[in-house]
Amino acid sequence: MSYVAPVKDLMFNLQHLAGLEQVARLPGFEDAGLETAQAVLEECARLNQEVIAPLNWEGDKYPSSYHDGKVSTTPGFKQAFHQFAEGGWQGLQHPVQFGGQGLPKSIGAACVEMFNSANLSFALCPLLTDGAIEALLTAGTEEQKQLFLPPMIAGEWTGTMCLTEPQAGSDLALVRSRAEPQADGSYKVFGTKIFITYGEHDYTPNIVHLVLARIPGAPEGVKGISLFIVPKFVLDAEGQPGARNDVRCVSIEHKLGIKASPTAVLQFGDHGGAEGYLVGQANRGLEYMFIMMNAARFAVGLQGIAVAERAYQKAVAFARERLQSRPVDGSSAQAAPIIVHPDVKRMLLTMRAYTEGCRAMASVAAAAYDGAHHHPDDAARAQNASFYEFLVPLVKGYSTEMSIEVASLGVQVHGGMGFVEETGAAQYYRDARILTIYEGTTAIQANDFVGRKTLRDGGRTARAVAAQIEATEAELQASGSAHALALREQLQAARLAFLDAVAFVLEHAKANPNAVFAGSVPYLLLGGNLVAGWQLARALLVAERELAAGREAEFMRTKILTARFYADHLLSRAGSQRDSIVAGHAAVTEISPDAF
Amino acid sequence: MSYVAPVKDLMFNLQHLAGLEQVARLPGFEDAGLETAQAVLEECARLNQEVIAPLNWEGDKYPSSYHDGKVSTTPGFKQAFHQFAEGGWQGLQHPVQFGGQGLPKSIGAACVEMFNSANLSFALCPLLTDGAIEALLTAGTEEQKQLFLPPMIAGEWTGTMCLTEPQAGSDLALVRSRAEPQADGSYKVFGTKIFITYGEHDYTPNIVHLVLARIPGAPEGVKGISLFIVPKFVLDAEGQPGARNDVRCVSIEHKLGIKASPTAVLQFGDHGGAEGYLVGQANRGLEYMFIMMNAARFAVGLQGIAVAERAYQKAVAFARERLQSRPVDGSSAQAAPIIVHPDVKRMLLTMRAYTEGCRAMASVAAAAYDGAHHHPDDAARAQNASFYEFLVPLVKGYSTEMSIEVASLGVQVHGGMGFVEETGAAQYYRDARILTIYEGTTAIQANDFVGRKTLRDGGRTARAVAAQIEATEAELQASGSAHALALREQLQAARLAFLDAVAFVLEHAKANPNAVFAGSVPYLLLGGNLVAGWQLARALLVAERELAAGREAEFMRTKILTARFYADHLLSRAGSQRDSIVAGHAAVTEISPDAF
Repeated sequence: MSYVAPVKDLMFNLQHLAGLEQVARLPGFEDAGLETAQAVLEECARLNQEVIAPLNWEGDKYPSSYHDGKVSTTPGFKQAFHQFAEGGWQGLQHPVQFGGQGLPKSIGAACVEMFNSANLSFALCPLLTDGAIEALLTAGTEEQKQLFLPPMIAGEWTGTMCLTEPQAGSDLALVRSRAEPQADGSYKVFGTKIFITYGEHDYTPNIVHLVLARIPGAPEGVKGISLFIVPKFVLDAEGQPGARNDVRCVSIEHKLGIKASPTAVLQFGDHGGAEGYLVGQANRGLEYMFIMMNAARFAVGLQGIAVAERAYQKAVAFARERLQSRPVDGSSAQAAPIIVHPDVKRMLLTMRAYTEGCRAMASVAAAAYDGAHHHPDDAARAQNASFYEFLVPLVKGYSTEMSIEVASLGVQVHGGMGFVEETGAAQYYRDARILTIYEGTTAIQANDFVGRKTLRDGGRTARAVAAQIEATEAELQASGSAHALALREQLQAARLAFLDAVAFVLEHAKANPNAVFAGSVPYLLLGGNLVAGWQLARALLVAERELAAGREAEFMRTKILTARFYADHLLSRAGSQRDSIVAGHAAVTEISPDAF
Repeated sequence: MSYVAPVKDLMFNLQHLAGLEQVARLPGFEDAGLETAQAVLEECARLNQEVIAPLNWEGDKYPSSYHDGKVSTTPGFKQAFHQFAEGGWQGLQHPVQFGGQGLPKSIGAACVEMFNSANLSFALCPLLTDGAIEALLTAGTEEQKQLFLPPMIAGEWTGTMCLTEPQAGSDLALVRSRAEPQADGSYKVFGTKIFITYGEHDYTPNIVHLVLARIPGAPEGVKGISLFIVPKFVLDAEGQPGARNDVRCVSIEHKLGIKASPTAVLQFGDHGGAEGYLVGQANRGLEYMFIMMNAARFAVGLQGIAVAERAYQKAVAFARERLQSRPVDGSSAQAAPIIVHPDVKRMLLTMRAYTEGCRAMASVAAAAYDGAHHHPDDAARAQNASFYEFLVPLVKGYSTEMSIEVASLGVQVHGGMGFVEETGAAQYYRDARILTIYEGTTAIQANDFVGRKTLRDGGRTARAVAAQIEATEAELQASGSAHALALREQLQAARLAFLDAVAFVLEHAKANPNAVFAGSVPYLLLGGNLVAGWQLARALLVAERELAAGREAEFMRTKILTARFYADHLLSRAGSQRDSIVAGHAAVTEISPDAF
C-alpha cells in the first residue's frame, strides 16, 4: 500500500490535544464523539488508501490536458470524485440543513489531511469547493443558498475562487475585472482571471465560480471589490444547469507539480458578459473572500502536513529495504538497511517531528474553530475565535514551509533513486512547492500574523498563548523525566524568544515598519515552531501518562522520542529565529533595491 | 541576457581573499596573475552568456533522449561543446605538457562556476572529464597518458566515472563488476553500472570510461577494487577510435532535473567482455577513484554556488519588474516593484549572502589546492593540503545544501509564476536537488568531515582554522564599525560553537559513534556556515578598506551589507547547529528502526 492513513495519531490528537470530548458537548455536535470520529476516520482511510492514493502518481504522469476550451482530467480521477461525492465527503463539515453531515472541523480536518496525503491534486477540488460553500453560507441570500449549496455540498457541482489576475496576485487592490449591473438585478461580468484551480474540469456538470470584480463607480483599491457567483452553466427554472455562461477556459498552466489539478486561465465576458449574481453587499467582496481564504488557508496548511506524511512514509519504506554500508558502531560486518544509520534516523525523525508537530497544531486549531462557532457562551466563543485566528497563519505558513523541507529530505533519504521520477519521492518535492505560494504566500501569512494577529490586539492573544505554554512548562517540570526536562528547557527558551519578538514587533511597527517586516517571516516561523513544539510537549505528557497506564506502549514511546527530537533539533532554532527578527533588520533596511 | 557572470565578485575573491598574487609566485604559475585572470574570466563570461546560458531552458524542455543504444542530446548542445573545446576550456587547469593551459585551480574554479551557472547539464560533461583526467594524471602509465590525455584535454573525447551499481551506491564495498585478466595484459570487464553521467552521448567520437571492478581473487570489500580504462571505441594503431568496445548504454534515466545531461545505465561485457586496461596497481582503485571524486566533489560544490547565483539573478530581475502592493512604510500610494518590500529584500539577501559566502570559501579552497600542489616548500605544501582537504566536504556539502534553499527561495520570490515551468525558476529548484546526492551525499561528506578531516588528525586542522578565525575577529574588533562589530560577535559565537562541536566529536567518536554520527550533518553544516561567514568577514574588512580608499563604492557597500546580513541571519544559526550536535543525539540513538 502506497499510503497508510495515520489514524492512530489523528485520534490521539483528537482525544488528547484537541479535546474532542469537549467539542462533542457543544450544541449540534452531540454525536461527534470519539466513537464517531474513529468510524469516520477509518472509513475515510479506506477510501483514500484504496481508491485515491493509487491515482497520485498517475496524475503526475498524465496531467490534466486542455483542448479547445475543455479540460480532460487524468483517467480515473472523475470516477474517484464520484465515489468521494457519493460517500458524502464533500458535505462532512457542512450544515445538515443543506445536506451536509454537520460534523465538527476537528474531525473534518483529519479527513482533509488524509485526502491530501492520498492525492494533493485530487483533494484540491473539494478544498476549493469547501471555501466557496463557506462564503455562500456566510454571505449568500437565502435563494442563492437554496440554489447552489445542496448540489455543491453533495459534490454534484464544484466551486472555485477567482481572485488572481495577471497584474493582481498578492495585491487584490489591483483587481480590474468589472461587473455591470443589469435591469433584472443580475450583473454582466468581464475580465481575465488566472491561476484558477479547477477553473475548468470534467468531474461535474456545473462549476460555481466565485469571482471578485468591481462595479462601475466603486471606490479604488480593496474597498471597491465585490463578490459574484458566476456559474459555468446558468441555472434553468428547475435549478438545473441550463445555458452555457460566458466564461471560458482559454488555457491551463504547465506546472512544476500538482499536475493533475488543472490551473485555468478564465476569460469572463468575451461574448457579451458572463451572467453573475452579487453575493452579499456591494464592495464587501474582500471580506467575504477572506472567509473562503481563511478556510482555504487552514486547509492548505493541512496539505503541507499531508504531503509531509506521505513523503515520510515513502522514505521510511525505502530506508527499510535499501542495504548500504555497515553500521557505524561496528555491530555488523554486513551492509545494513540504511534505516539503522544515525543520519538516516535523524532525517526520518526530522520529517516525523515536523509532521506530527504541525498535525497537533492543526488539530488544536480546528477544535478552536469548533468552539468559536458552536460554544453557547459568548466569551468562550470569542476566546476560541481569537485563538483560531491566531493559529491560521501559523498552520498555513509553518506547515507549508516545513513540508518543502520534509519533501526534500524525503528525496535525500532515497539517494540517487530520489532523483529518478519513477521512484515517486520527487513528486512530493515538486507538489509541495506550491503550498507556500497559493492562498497567500508565506510573506502574506506573516503580514497577517504581524498585523491582524499581533498588532491589532496589542499582543494580547500572543501573550495569552505564551502564558498557556508556560503552564505546560510547569507540567513538564513536574513530570521530571529526562525527556520532559529537556523539552521544558527548549520550550521555555523558545517561549521567551517569542515574547522578545512580540515585544519588538509591538514596539517598532509604527515607527519603523521596514524593520518589523524585515523579520515578519522569521516571526511567523518562530510562532509556528513554538506552537508546534508546545503541542508535542503536551503530547509527551499524555504519552508518559498513557505509558504508565500500560496503554499503547510502542506508540507512546515513539511519541515521546519524536517530541524530544523536535525539542533538540527544531525548537532549538527559536533563538536564531528571534535574532533574525530583533537584530536582523540592519542590512535589509539599509540595502538599496538598486544594489541587488 | 539571462545570465551575467559575476566577474567582479570572482575577481574580488581572487585578489583579496584567495591571494592570487601569491599563487602567481608559485613555480609554473608565473603568468597567472590578476591580469591573466581578468582576461580569462571575461572571455569565459562571454562564451557562457552568449552561447551556453541560452541553451539551459532548451535542455530542460528537450532532454537528452535514448533510442536503440544511442543518446541524442538537446539540439545546440553538441555545437556548444565544440566551441567549448575549441576555446581550450577543457584544458584550462591541466598540464601544458598534454596540451592544457596549466592555469591554477583558483582561476579554473571561477570558470567552472560560470559554466555551471550558464548550464548545469552542459557543464557536467567537462566536470566528469576533469575528474577522469586527474585520475589518469596521477595513476596512469606513461603510455596511457600519451594515448588518452591529449584528446581528453583538448575536449575531443570525454571521460566518465563508472562507480555506482544497482546494489552499490554510497557503499562501494558492494561493487560486483569484474575484470578478467587476458594474456596480452588487458582485461575483459563485465558488469552493470548505473547513474553514469554522460555515459553515452553524441558530442564526441569517443568516450573514456573509468570503471571500478574486481579482479578474480581480489580481497572482499573496498580493498579489492581496481580501476580500469574502458574506451567506448578501442584505439587503433594510430591512437584513433577503432573497433566498438563491448560497453553499451541500455537506457537513460527520467530525472527531476539536469535533464539535458544523459544519465546512463551501462552494460559492460554482454558480448564477450569489454576491453579494459588497469590503471595503476591492482586493488588500489578506490584510492585513484578518490582523486576523481575529490576533484568532482569540489566541482559539485561549485555547481551549488553556480545554480544559486543563477536563481538569484532571475529572482532579482523578476522582483524589479513585478508591481505588487504599496510599501509598508507608506512611502508611496502606488503598487511598488516587489524588490522594495522588506521580505523580498530579505529573501534576495539570503540568496546573495549564501552564494557569496560559499563562493568566497570555494575560492580560498582552490588557492589552497594550488599551494598544496605547487608550493616549493614541503611544510607549506602540507599545510595547504590539509586546509584544502578540510574544506572539500564543506564546499561540497554546505554549498549544495544551501543551493536547494536558495533555488527554493528563487521560486518563492516569483510567487505563482515561480510554479509555472515556463518562467524558469522551477528548473533551478529541480536541477539543484541532485547536488546534495551525487558525488557523495551530504551524509557521506559529513562522514568524511568527521572521520578523515577531524578525527584523523585529532582536530588539529579544525583548531588551526578556528585560530585563524579568531585572528579575523580581532581585525573586526579593530575596525570598530557597527557592521564589523556585529559580525565579530556572530563570528565569535559561531567559532566557539564549532569548537564545542569539535570537542564533542573527538571525545565521543570511539565510545559512542552513534551519538557522533547522529550529528554529523549538522557538524558539517556548522563548519560550512562558519567558514563561509569567516570569508565574508574577511571580505567586509577588505571592502571597508577599499571604500575608504574610494574604490568601487557601490560594490563595496553591498559587500559589507551582504556580510552583515550573513552574520545576522545565517551565521546566527551556529548555536542551534551546535545544540543539534552536542545535545541532539538522545532521540536518534534511542529510537528503534522498527518504531518509524
